Parts: sequence; structure tokens; C-alpha cells
Amino acid sequence: MLEQIDLSKSIDKKEYEEITDDLKIKLGELQRKAWKMEIPIIIVFEGWHAAGMTDVINRFLMPLNPMGFELYTTGEPCVKEMKKPLLWRFWTKIPKKGSIAIFDRSWYRRAIIEHFVKGMHENDMEKCLNGMKFFERQLTDDGYLIIKFFLHVSQERQRERFESIRKKNLPLFLVEEEGKNYLDNYDEYFHLIERSIEITDTHQAPWTIVEAEDLRFATAKVMAEFVKTLEEKIEQKENENEMAHSHGNTNCAIPGLNSSVLKNVDLTKSISIKEYRKKRKNYQKRLVNLQYELFKQKKPVMIVFEGWDAAGKGGDIRRLVEKLNPRLYRVVPIGAPSDYELSHHYLWRFYNEIPEAGHTAIYDRSWYGRILVERVEDLCGRQEWKRAYREINEFEETLSNYGMIIIKFWLHIDKDEQLRRFEEREKTAHKKWKITPDDWRNRDMWSLYEGAVDEMLHRTSTTYAPWTIVESNNKHYSRIKVLETVVERLEKELGINDE
Amino acid sequence: MLEQIDLSKSIDKKEYEEITDDLKIKLGELQRKAWKMEIPIIIVFEGWHAAGMTDVINRFLMPLNPMGFELYTTGEPCVKEMKKPLLWRFWTKIPKKGSIAIFDRSWYRRAIIEHFVKGMHENDMEKCLNGMKFFERQLTDDGYLIIKFFLHVSQERQRERFESIRKKNLPLFLVEEEGKNYLDNYDEYFHLIERSIEITDTHQAPWTIVEAEDLRFATAKVMAEFVKTLEEKIEQKENENEMAHSHGNTNCAIPGLNSSVLKNVDLTKSISIKEYRKKRKNYQKRLVNLQYELFKQKKPVMIVFEGWDAAGKGGDIRRLVEKLNPRLYRVVPIGAPSDYELSHHYLWRFYNEIPEAGHTAIYDRSWYGRILVERVEDLCGRQEWKRAYREINEFEETLSNYGMIIIKFWLHIDKDEQLRRFEEREKTAHKKWKITPDDWRNRDMWSLYEGAVDEMLHRTSTTYAPWTIVESNNKHYSRIKVLETVVERLEKELGINDE
Repeated sequence: MLEQIDLSKSIDKKEYEEITDDLKIKLGELQRKAWKMEIPIIIVFEGWHAAGMTDVINRFLMPLNPMGFELYTTGEPCVKEMKKPLLWRFWTKIPKKGSIAIFDRSWYRRAIIEHFVKGMHENDMEKCLNGMKFFERQLTDDGYLIIKFFLHVSQERQRERFESIRKKNLPLFLVEEEGKNYLDNYDEYFHLIERSIEITDTHQAPWTIVEAEDLRFATAKVMAEFVKTLEEKIEQKENENEMAHSHGNTNCAIPGLNSSVLKNVDLTKSISIKEYRKKRKNYQKRLVNLQYELFKQKKPVMIVFEGWDAAGKGGDIRRLVEKLNPRLYRVVPIGAPSDYELSHHYLWRFYNEIPEAGHTAIYDRSWYGRILVERVEDLCGRQEWKRAYREINEFEETLSNYGMIIIKFWLHIDKDEQLRRFEEREKTAHKKWKITPDDWRNRDMWSLYEGAVDEMLHRTSTTYAPWTIVESNNKHYSRIKVLETVVERLEKELGINDE
Repeated sequence: MLEQIDLSKSIDKKEYEEITDDLKIKLGELQRKAWKMEIPIIIVFEGWHAAGMTDVINRFLMPLNPMGFELYTTGEPCVKEMKKPLLWRFWTKIPKKGSIAIFDRSWYRRAIIEHFVKGMHENDMEKCLNGMKFFERQLTDDGYLIIKFFLHVSQERQRERFESIRKKNLPLFLVEEEGKNYLDNYDEYFHLIERSIEITDTHQAPWTIVEAEDLRFATAKVMAEFVKTLEEKIEQKENENEMAHSHGNTNCAIPGLNSSVLKNVDLTKSISIKEYRKKRKNYQKRLVNLQYELFKQKKPVMIVFEGWDAAGKGGDIRRLVEKLNPRLYRVVPIGAPSDYELSHHYLWRFYNEIPEAGHTAIYDRSWYGRILVERVEDLCGRQEWKRAYREINEFEETLSNYGMIIIKFWLHIDKDEQLRRFEEREKTAHKKWKITPDDWRNRDMWSLYEGAVDEMLHRTSTTYAPWTIVESNNKHYSRIKVLETVVERLEKELGINDE
């Protein structure tokens, strides 16, 4: 792909000004239009070291309103970033609707460089590139526009520019170690880069190769390509809006599937208070050691709690963390998204909350809200929650490939038990705040939820992130089953044989 | 202060349960009440290493709703944090209204440790402690509740606990290098800690020394102290609300002062196009080198642009950055705060935007909005903007002590020139978006703004952060004066003699 490129292209100063004077005005206009239409835009600049990226980017920025873009320079990861999956650094930086995020080097360069670094988690290149395709497709599915540029220069030209930077005695970050390495191993990198571009040159997020021997030509091409692509996107979105209007709202909830996992759950299971105390003590003690072992082995853990209102999520979580070190775990309660969160892809806020290596995050409700409450209450479009099963599986697969241990609980009670607990809460002074009109409303939609839960358990129970259904009519039984499941799973993952 | 403490205090298990059962329910109730009343709370835990902080904190957290608090463990700074002033790490973590931020070690411990570290910017302890007093007073002035605990144990007890941690072979972060050092230099630290506590034991944010030889006693004392202090704060706020109602709204704008800086500005200043081109080229070239020199010397720069609507802020900024490396500068446009920003201290969002060492941030409007638009438009209370002059000076002084270079411009035009520019914008297709009804409305309040600007220029022009008034009726003159001021100031700060 790169070898066929004709690198001799250039334009003179007069041509450049003629072309770009017009493009600059258009750039500003389109930025304002995208802002109004709430189109989020991601621009990726990749390329050889010393390909002139600094100049091209600065010229590209001049006509843009700084209110609407953010430039991210991607360099070596800091300690915090090294404790998270590669894509975390970029997921957390995706723009909100209407804004532009510009990446000066991106996930591509990091993947290629870190591929060669020993001890990095993600040096399986195939899996890594797949994760990127997931990432980009999930964003474009959600309405994001992704524009990817590769600035291409010959090896000779690169060497020349390098020398001139060196002579000017500019600061090190322009010719840092990684850069020199990049240059010295041109052939090796060339192959990897070419392959990465081929694999990720997708329909949704195609690459544009920019001939960058002449920086005026490169700048003009980048501007023109941006204008063209954004104009197309705007036109497409305008058509979509019309379509949506003429066809009306197709949003509706579908009834529960025929096969049911929930129907077969035995809710009579219980445990004596004596056995409960004994087991609880035992598991909590083992869990303290497991927590330190996770830290030593640098393994991150995500524990998800979903379940009916009043099924005992809070109580189960409290018993789980009671003896733990608060520096190593975090309880993350997930409520309705804020406006700011709503203006991003819905997975964005969950990427912001993933635990770092050696730490545990415990979710009181989670990203499954997309296919539970948001589905049942029509809070998102039918196409959106339909798509979410795949997105969630991809999300968990990507994390699991990185080394994340994922444990998911569905706390199950029946409708009578829920009623008993609601009434008890209303009677007890310091528990009354827990019960709200929402709870009664959700209860009325029990059978719709039942259908959604069944589909969720079927479609998102995977080898890397299986669901555990917890029979929770008996609170003590529920707490022990949670403790037991976590302890046994962690002992298995850590290769510990306790008994 | 610490030496007088009786460390023999303890309670048995039964007493502990009796006391805390009641406190736990109260804790939950008060948390919900503070949430509703929008009281933000900061809890600081300091103390000797191995003082049992982990246990005390985890027990304290159990009765709290995780939705409303965040625990921050303060350890050694990461690379990014080392490029910012010490307090930046904490300013960015202050809770929003109604929430609780709990700091497991805080600015105190970091200041004491980093005091001994060579090459850290802030090892002048007096200035550092003063900065902390500013920080805490600014927050409490704004309605924050700050509760500070120091967990005290004897040196012998500390040594014992250390040994037992070592024997259990727990992970390193519990007995890291810094901790050992802390223990080995007990006497030296003891003195510094005692002095820090004395200096910062203020009326607004007093210290509570907690006897922590017995962890049950310590936990109960922490809970009880929290309950007592929060109850007082709630009562105080309820009274304030009543007062506010009975006295009505005292919010009003005051007229301009008699003495005027603006009246004496000579707006006829101009420059020929030929001279403009020549000077611009010269200054832009020098600025490129200065930018790299700043990076080498790791000096951060903040450049503030304030001025009348249509005074040319955007154009001046564009000429300033036109030739620069976009990796080293950032234009930060400041608009109306979001709801999320409004739920924090108003300086919070500006702390989030300070540049790291070696980088430059250019503000298109700034924190001065507090004493300009927010004052004139009654967007904040009279007490709030009155207080802001001091807060802003303290903010800039703290940053300047850290090594920040602060340059501030007021772009001045007269009312006729503004009218000409407004009309021109309305006539030009691709400039029309720049003019909004707000601009015309602001224009009607010209004289109110004039008073506010005059007071701002008088009261916030300091030796460490002086204002430069830029005569901007002539655009070319304005651009050159900005370039010249920045270049000359930076050359002076960097010790460069260009001509």
C-alpha cells in the first residue's frame, strides 16, 4: 500500500495559498455545522518520524475554533497508563458530540512500538489490531466520524530532516529514543505499519496516505480531505434525519424469549446462621490474602452486581469488602448518566472506571443498564440496545485479552420477596430513604424486565466473562454464594490451592 | 501539640459496638442530609506510618453510600504530577457540592516528604504551608467543610506494627521506601509535622489528633468527630439560609471607581503595514526559539487575554501561536461554566487547565470572568466577587512561587471602534457567526464593565503577575505589542539577551 505512493508531489507557494484560502473558510464553517449537528470527530495523524507532522498539524489548527477541538500528543505512557489496557488511554479521550479530538500519533503507533516492548500486556499484534477495529467500529456505529492520515516520506528524506533537527539542537522529545529506534529499524517497522494499515483500512474508518515530502502539498491534502469527508458525513446525517422523520419512531420493546434461565432458578436455597458465620469468616480471610496476591501479580478485577431492586446488592457488596484494604478496591455505583456522559459513546463512562493493574472495581449496576433499564424504558433506540450485546461482549473480550478478571452476578429474588422487602424498608426509619416511587414503577414492569434479563444472561455469558445467578431470597445464602464464587474464581486465576 | 497527647486510651469490643452502632446510622443520615443541602466535604487522614489508617478508613467507609464519596490514596507523584504544582493534585480532586472526598494522606504528607527531595520546586516550607492555608481558606469560604485527622502513635508502637507487616510479607506499598525513611527519621519528621500542624490548625480547618494505639478507640473517635462537626455545619448552614431569606438579596453592582486607568489609554497608537510585517516576522522567529528554551528549562507559562468584545483577542492569539509547535502550547477558551463546573469552587476549573512544566497555556478569557461578567451580570453573589480579588491574587502568587510565568493582557478599544467592528462582522458572510445578541447586550452595559475593568486592573496587577494594557483600535499595533511583550518578558525570565 505504501510502496505504490508517488512521493514526488508538490505545489508552489502561490498555488498553496489559492487552494487553502478557500479551504480555511470552509473548515471553519464545517466545524460550526458539525458542532450544531452534534457530530463528534476523531482525526488521527500517523506517519514516519520527522514526516513534518508538527507543521501540518499547526497549519491545520489555525482556521479552527479552539473551543471545539482538543489536540492530544501521544507519547510514552506514564505509570498510570501502563497499568491500564492500551485503548483506555484513547477511550477516555474521545470527544463529546460536536467536538473534535485530534491525535498526534495514536493507538497505532503505540501498538507497534509496544509490540516490541517486553512485559507489555498487549504484544499479541493480531488481538491488538482486532481490538482497534472493535473500537473504531463501535464509535462510527454511534455516529462518530473517524479520519485517519498517514504522512508518508522516504527513508532518505526522513534522515535528512532528522539531521536538520539535530543540528538545530531542538529539545529531545522530537528525536527521543523511540524515534531513533523507529528510524534505525525502518524496514522492520515498514512491514508492520503497512500490515496494520491494511488490516485497519476499514469501510467505516479508512486511511488516507498523505505524500509529505512537500509540506505545502501535505497540508493542502489534509485540509481538502477533511473538508470532503466531513461534507459527506453531514449530508449523510441530514438524510438520516429525514428518514427517521418519514418512517416515524421504530423504537419498541420486544417480549421475553420463550426459553428462560430465570424460571429454573431454585429460590428456596438457604443456609443456617451458624454455617453462615463460619463460612463468611473463612472466605473473608482468604479474600484478604487474595487481594494482596492480586496486587503482587498485578492482575485487575471487575466484579459486576446486577439484580432486582432490593435483591441485596448493597449488603452483598459490604460483606465482600468488609475486611479488605480500601486502597485496593473501589465500589463504583452506576446511576443514570449525566448530560455530559450522554454526549459520549455510552461505553465511555465505563472505560473511565476500569481498575488499574492489581486493583479491584466492584460495580453496583453497570454497563448492562443499556440492555436492561435503557431497553425496557425506551431510553435509547432499538438499534442501539440491539447493537449493545455485541458491543458489551467485545468490551469484555478486549479487557479479558488484556488480563482483566471479570466476575458477574445476577441477584435473583421473586416478586413476593421483593414486596416483603419494600414494605419492610418503608417501615424502618433509617431504611426508608432506600425506597422511591421508581422502585414501585419498576416492579410494575417485572415481566418486561424478566424478558430483558433472560436475553442478557443468554447472550452475554461468555467463556471469558460468565454470569453467576445468585439465589437471593435468603440473604445469608446470597452473601455466601457471592463470597464463595469470588474466592474460588480468584484462587483459580492466581493458581492458588487453598484447601 | 503531639507530645501532650495521652496515648493510653482504649475501649473494649462491647463498648465499641455500643458506641458505633448508633454512630453508623447517624453517619448515613448525615451523608444524605449534606447531599441534599449540597455541602461539599473534605476529610484528611494523616498520621504516622503504620498508625492503622487502613483499618480506620475502611471501617469509616462501611456505613457511607459509595455514590457520595471518593477515596484518594496519596502516594508518590507520577511524572505528570511532578510537572505541576503540588496543590494541583488536590485542587483537581476537590468534591462537587454534596459529595465527600477522603484523602488517605494528603498535601501535608507530600509537602513534608518533598521538602527533603532535591530538585522539587516547592521545598520552601513556609511558602508551601502558606499556600495550603490559602487553599483551605478559599474552600471553606465557599462553603466546603474540611475535617483533618492526625492518627498518632508512639515510635515503639510504630516499630511493632511495621515488623508485623514485614513478617506477613504484605506488598511493598505498605512499607515502601518513603515509609521506612519516615520511620528512621522519626525525630526530624516529628518536628516538621508538629510545626505544620501548628501553623495549619486554623479556625476554618482545625486538626483533630486521634490517639491510635487502640484502633477501636481511634475509629470511634473519628466517627464521633465527623458526626459532631457535620451536625454543626448543617446547623450553621440552616441558619445562614434563614438569614439570607430574612434579609433579602444583597446582591448588587457597585459603580466604577473615580480613578480610572482606562481613561488615560492612548487609543490613537498605530503602526505602518511595512513595520508590522517586519516586526511580526522578527518576534515570531524569536518566539519559536523561546518556546524550545522554555521546554528545556521546564518553565510553564500562562498568558491571559481579556478585553472588550471584538477587541481582537482571537486574532492576536493566532499571530502569537502561528509559528509555534502545537505540542507545547494550548489555547484554552473560557466560556460560561457548565453545571458540573458550577458545583465546584470556581477556581477548580482553572486548576484543571494549568500548563505543565515547559508548556504554555493561552487563555481566551479566564478566571477574571468572576470579577467582570459574573460581577456585572449578578451571576454570583456580591460577597463572592468581592472575595475574588484576594483569591485571584493568591492563586497567581501560589503559581508564581512554583515558577509559573504569568502574562496578562487587557485589549482595549473604544465604543465607536467596537460598533464599527460589530457592523463589519454582520456584513461579512464567514464572520457573521461571531456576533450574537449577547454582544449587543454587553455593549449596553459598557459603563458598568468599565468600572469593573478599572477595579480589576488596580487590584490584581501585582509584581508577580502584572497587567499589560494593549491599545487595540489599530489591529496591527495590538498584535505587535502582544508579541513584543511576550518575547521581552520571556527573554528576561530565561536570561536571554537577543539584541
